Amino acid sequence: MEARINPGDTVGILGSGQLGRMLAMAAARLGLRTHIYAPDRGPALDVCAQSTIAPYDDETALGAFAASVAVVSYEFENVPAATAAFLAARRPVRPGSQALATTQDRLTEKTFLNGLGIPTASFAAVDDLAGLERAVAALGRPSILKTRRFGYDGKGQVLLRESTLLCEAFDGLGRQPAILEGLVPFTREVSVIGARGLQGAFAAWDVCENEHENHILARTRVPARLKPETAQAAIDMTGRIAAALDYVGVITVEMFLVEETIDGAMQEKLVVNEIAPRVHNSGHWTIDGAVTSQFEQHIRAICGWPLGSPRRHGRIEMRNLIGAEAQGWHELLSEPGLSLHLYGKHEARAGRKMGHVTRILDESAPFPEDL
Amino acid sequence: MEARINPGDTVGILGSGQLGRMLAMAAARLGLRTHIYAPDRGPALDVCAQSTIAPYDDETALGAFAASVAVVSYEFENVPAATAAFLAARRPVRPGSQALATTQDRLTEKTFLNGLGIPTASFAAVDDLAGLERAVAALGRPSILKTRRFGYDGKGQVLLRESTLLCEAFDGLGRQPAILEGLVPFTREVSVIGARGLQGAFAAWDVCENEHENHILARTRVPARLKPETAQAAIDMTGRIAAALDYVGVITVEMFLVEETIDGAMQEKLVVNEIAPRVHNSGHWTIDGAVTSQFEQHIRAICGWPLGSPRRHGRIEMRNLIGAEAQGWHELLSEPGLSLHLYGKHEARAGRKMGHVTRILDESAPFPEDL
Repeated sequence: MEARINPGDTVGILGSGQLGRMLAMAAARLGLRTHIYAPDRGPALDVCAQSTIAPYDDETALGAFAASVAVVSYEFENVPAATAAFLAARRPVRPGSQALATTQDRLTEKTFLNGLGIPTASFAAVDDLAGLERAVAALGRPSILKTRRFGYDGKGQVLLRESTLLCEAFDGLGRQPAILEGLVPFTREVSVIGARGLQGAFAAWDVCENEHENHILARTRVPARLKPETAQAAIDMTGRIAAALDYVGVITVEMFLVEETIDGAMQEKLVVNEIAPRVHNSGHWTIDGAVTSQFEQHIRAICGWPLGSPRRHGRIEMRNLIGAEAQGWHELLSEPGLSLHLYGKHEARAGRKMGHVTRILDESAPFPEDL
Repeated sequence: MEARINPGDTVGILGSGQLGRMLAMAAARLGLRTHIYAPDRGPALDVCAQSTIAPYDDETALGAFAASVAVVSYEFENVPAATAAFLAARRPVRPGSQALATTQDRLTEKTFLNGLGIPTASFAAVDDLAGLERAVAALGRPSILKTRRFGYDGKGQVLLRESTLLCEAFDGLGRQPAILEGLVPFTREVSVIGARGLQGAFAAWDVCENEHENHILARTRVPARLKPETAQAAIDMTGRIAAALDYVGVITVEMFLVEETIDGAMQEKLVVNEIAPRVHNSGHWTIDGAVTSQFEQHIRAICGWPLGSPRRHGRIEMRNLIGAEAQGWHELLSEPGLSLHLYGKHEARAGRKMGHVTRILDESAPFPEDL
């Protein structure tokens, strides 16, 4: 399991979406081959050396996949635990099972964070309707009811207003194990993308500031508008989380910035929203805007290689191209200095991430909204 | 032939080496698929959506290849004319046949350049031994005898010293049609990498300064040490060459810098050495060091899309990893700020280009040799 991984070896990636695609391209830069394993054909298949299309519980296919690769990683956190365990018995799976188990369940994740002394929204477990009534009595309204597992981009959650019927809300989520979260009165959403190496080295890019539309990331700007000491605290917190999970690879921590006026002075406070055990949409700018991209950093880390420099080339704006927005590709290509990325997806469904653009601005050039 | 090329379409590339590999990855960034056609398996096959391994004169395979792609390009200039013509009858081949015909033959190329008023080394055609004797009488010694076609990295050429026997030199090149070139007393070797779009737009990166070892590029630094007006003249010259060839794609012009003292003042003069109708080793730094890489620029151009910005992120040093040098990959990965590229070649033969590294320095930081 601890054999050194060398250029020419094959990296196995679970998932064939755009994150797997960008991981495969980063691996290729470093002379590595990529084997994509996924239940369905996605855009990563166009850039990998090898692929297996099979369900995540097909042990024959998983066994052959494991035999062909030197290390296994994944593009998404909802890898079934049995799949991860089957592969981990044969090859290193990075990040490991502790990271997966902790981040797949919102209740486990928040409990883990609070155990480290890291603030989260207030929360309560909800296993049944009675539990929901007790949780609402404790946390009040408005509050947010979320499934404990498999939520993303606003899916699997419902806002509880004064008028919301609790039984309807719980039915709406399919009566799954859930968690009730108190609302955080945040000023901004930020994320830290960091990486932890096999020997414990840690490196992070500057804090990203994120704007969402319809629960989907619309725009990231870097650096985030934070006091320098708050930015450092956010990065330190991410490093502590990674160390506590004995993490290997790129990790993303989404946080809320809360501003409080204490004794007439504005104080900045960070509240962790969630952890993604993987490369993240808010880090796509690192392909064009930093010495080392998040994708290359992840590959370096999971191979046990030294981490690269997260230095930025300027001030950054990244915008997602959602659904039909990607149809503007030709006009976007005409904008001087803009970098366009399209993920090679065939169908531009509403809400689907089709690509992104990066703009690298002079360090001294303000963003329009700061003028 | 003039149908618009869209993301999702397939770009056809002749050649499966590292240039084809980096072109395929640049195409993927833009949502394009790549079909590699080559007579043998090379590292580009690990990152392409489709591949055909067949000889360049296999019309059945070429026909199927053409039918599967929206446009054809190539990673090397020695595409057989019949192959290019066969494909051009079915799909746009970019750059076109004029660029190929002009650059495949050193005599045609120099004649073309002089016709534009662009200086080259003095030269004379050599078709037989009598012609070689006449050419040596005209140009003197030392001079260089080169095959007219298929030379690269110092192959297919011999230096004629006072003691060299002409018949042995001509035999050594296999008595092929040749060209004798006078020696240019140059100070430095530089290259301009530019791109011309389908509608005639032209963009170039800053002039590159190149150091060779054993006739193979060892190091490129950017910007080159040239007077600003000389750098501009080099870029203008490249634009004129591209326009005269009705060129579409990335073009590289290798030049000698000659310093002459005239009336006590040092003057800089440019002499064109050769034209490469393709992306070039001295432009590999653009992947990490510029807003748009030469590979993406080539893809944009051959698709008829707008050209991207060639802006640099700093002062640049690129070094090739030749043969066993690539074995130092782990130590190189440890150097902060260095970007490593390995081409995924299986065998590290002597003189083989295995990868390269890029360093991006502060614009104000001098190179060690300038201190």
